[in-house]
Amino acid sequence: MYIPKIYKSEDSELMKKIISENGFALLITGKEKLSATHSMFLLNENENGFYLETHISKGNFQAKVLQNGDEVLCDFLGAHAYISSSWYDHENVSTWNYEAVQIRGTVELMTDEELYEHLRKLTFKYEKIQKCPVFMENMGDEFVREEMKGAFGLMIIPTEMFIVQKLSQNRKEEDFKNIISQLENGDENEREIAKKMKRINKF
Amino acid sequence: MYIPKIYKSEDSELMKKIISENGFALLITGKEKLSATHSMFLLNENENGFYLETHISKGNFQAKVLQNGDEVLCDFLGAHAYISSSWYDHENVSTWNYEAVQIRGTVELMTDEELYEHLRKLTFKYEKIQKCPVFMENMGDEFVREEMKGAFGLMIIPTEMFIVQKLSQNRKEEDFKNIISQLENGDENEREIAKKMKRINKF
Repeated sequence: MYIPKIYKSEDSELMKKIISENGFALLITGKEKLSATHSMFLLNENENGFYLETHISKGNFQAKVLQNGDEVLCDFLGAHAYISSSWYDHENVSTWNYEAVQIRGTVELMTDEELYEHLRKLTFKYEKIQKCPVFMENMGDEFVREEMKGAFGLMIIPTEMFIVQKLSQNRKEEDFKNIISQLENGDENEREIAKKMKRINKF
Repeated sequence: MYIPKIYKSEDSELMKKIISENGFALLITGKEKLSATHSMFLLNENENGFYLETHISKGNFQAKVLQNGDEVLCDFLGAHAYISSSWYDHENVSTWNYEAVQIRGTVELMTDEELYEHLRKLTFKYEKIQKCPVFMENMGDEFVREEMKGAFGLMIIPTEMFIVQKLSQNRKEEDFKNIISQLENGDENEREIAKKMKRINKF
């Protein structure tokens, strides 16, 4: 990912928000061959800083080759929207606005207990907002242990982190405001980008 | 990406639809280091079959290292939604439904004329639905040629293609129908998954 300075963020709160809201993200590896899997991520923090957790199927090629210390790249794409140059008052090319986080890191394979704890937290995150939540604690322990046999859990210890917030910061006031009004009439993604543009409060 | 048989599709129309509707996708490379860039893709077809087109900034690391014949992986994620196990009538774990396409292929760098044609088609695709479309043909040729200097255009000739359509095909009728009704009350992504589940018409 190439991030021109104007779109680069160092805001760890923004990073946490993008990861938390877009936890169905991409686990990318290059071991033996380029591979990428959509999986559910959690961001955690301990005394050494942030780290990611995810799990994939043991049937997955990545699960067969990944070992402690291997490098992976994780991609979290947030809201994104096409920005038409027809919304500017001058000739220009169209583009895409988006927020994303990429984390490069090294793999640490989970023990069974770490995998259990990961699944418990993951289930809690998504179930707590359901009408009749089903937490891991409500499931039979035997059932959970059986399900876990098919899962390959890993932690990713960051070595590099990129936060991109491309929100037309390079535009002048009139164009910036017009982009927002155009997006406000769009779909959820577009309205979300409009909200984010308002929030950076460039003018 | 690991695709259990039940979720694997060979439907090239579905593949085309997913790519076309999710053209802001991920270009993944492993040359020198794992890298991934969100960029705008087009799917094209010639007498040899399908191929992808995209462009990235010349400032991008990938643009500095990619050469003809290098391997890349492209990931197109379509609609996706969390599926709560609380919607089933029996104990189970939660999951995520989604549609995605991954294309592994080899790079062919664009000539200036191919890049021009790529940008013309890309602009047309997104501008034709705008109220006051700005097509490349409407832009000054000098301006376009100047903008093109910053762009690195590439074609990707597929060597492997994966189409995943994970839509609760493994569920029995009652659960399948309940998942649809739950998703129909959700956000755009969730309603889209509900529509797709109805369309596969499992029952």
